[in-house]
Amino acid sequence: MQIPVIRNVLEANEKMADKVRERLSGRDILALNLISSPGAGKTSLLERTLRDLAGKFRMAVIEGDLQTSNDAERVAATGAQAVQINTEGGCHLNSDMVSRALDKLSLDGVDILFIENVGNLVCPVEFDCGEDAKIALLSVAEGDDKPEKYPLLFNLAKAMVLNKIDLLPHVDFDRARARAFAVKLNRSLEIFELSCRSGEGLEAWYRWLEKARAGKMRGRTG
Amino acid sequence: MQIPVIRNVLEANEKMADKVRERLSGRDILALNLISSPGAGKTSLLERTLRDLAGKFRMAVIEGDLQTSNDAERVAATGAQAVQINTEGGCHLNSDMVSRALDKLSLDGVDILFIENVGNLVCPVEFDCGEDAKIALLSVAEGDDKPEKYPLLFNLAKAMVLNKIDLLPHVDFDRARARAFAVKLNRSLEIFELSCRSGEGLEAWYRWLEKARAGKMRGRTG
Repeated sequence: MQIPVIRNVLEANEKMADKVRERLSGRDILALNLISSPGAGKTSLLERTLRDLAGKFRMAVIEGDLQTSNDAERVAATGAQAVQINTEGGCHLNSDMVSRALDKLSLDGVDILFIENVGNLVCPVEFDCGEDAKIALLSVAEGDDKPEKYPLLFNLAKAMVLNKIDLLPHVDFDRARARAFAVKLNRSLEIFELSCRSGEGLEAWYRWLEKARAGKMRGRTG
Repeated sequence: MQIPVIRNVLEANEKMADKVRERLSGRDILALNLISSPGAGKTSLLERTLRDLAGKFRMAVIEGDLQTSNDAERVAATGAQAVQINTEGGCHLNSDMVSRALDKLSLDGVDILFIENVGNLVCPVEFDCGEDAKIALLSVAEGDDKPEKYPLLFNLAKAMVLNKIDLLPHVDFDRARARAFAVKLNRSLEIFELSCRSGEGLEAWYRWLEKARAGKMRGRTG
């Protein structure tokens, strides 16, 4: 009984995700779904990115949380458009929530849409939100075994951001081990080591965003 | 359609959880369900506790992970009995998994059973595993807003372990803010600030375990 119910939920989600993707692609908007544990630094990465690339791109953010609008407020303080989704206990966003959030954004001229998922390394991975790519974040404070223990995310993500590298001297985290696991799961995974606190390593992430957005434009004209 | 299905799943889980609880209470075993984000330090806390209290208690561990038996191996290296459950993608343990894991442990003389749940601040909270108490772990690297953003765990837990306090000089974490949110959700919450790396603060946690185990004994005879 249980399996068909779950399958229907996932199928309905995928249909709506395709509609979201069409809607965004029609406007050349690159959509990125940020997934990580709670506290890995998704909002901090967005705050830095929105500020540092404000002159280059128009960006909008959909924030997902069980409760509070803290993250949407942090993001809006950078000047970017932000909408908060409260899942009220729900452990992941889905494409229907994203579709309804899009109705509350002004999409004219937007180049990049960031979807910050609920902090959870498991459930959000299964629900396509209509994004072009999933971005996995991992903080070095979480331990280097996380790609091995939560493989699906690292398998499906286009890029992995290894955040909080300023803490490396103070934690037992073997970068080579984390990278080796992640690459074993996904040979084409792009990896960025950075610190949102010190700013180290952000440039490579920004260059990748520019390339990804340019690729999205070519995808439309090509 | 979806709500009745979920309700049935939760009801079935609670029935089995009560059976697990009876089975453990019949042997005076204190059962604690450890819940946190990935990488907050559940396994590290167990490694320290199992080593430091080995002379006082007989302890056993049920380890929950999507994949790998890394954590059961780490815990078994302390000399404690350990069983690994692999949920293969499942985002939480449930009472049926725990019941089957108990069949693989020798429960004779065991004083404390630790259940280390899947790293996830959301889903494990909803599924009673037959424990006497849920223990919430939070690492200071995750940010002081987590009790506010993931309230159900901190509302239901008997104790909160604030781990990795050795990192406090290197992160923006306001202890008073985290504690205030947590206590607002749960006035009787016991809070332990400690570092599994330096050992600081572990004594208070050990004293609480001794008291909780003594309380369990009285619960039987009283």
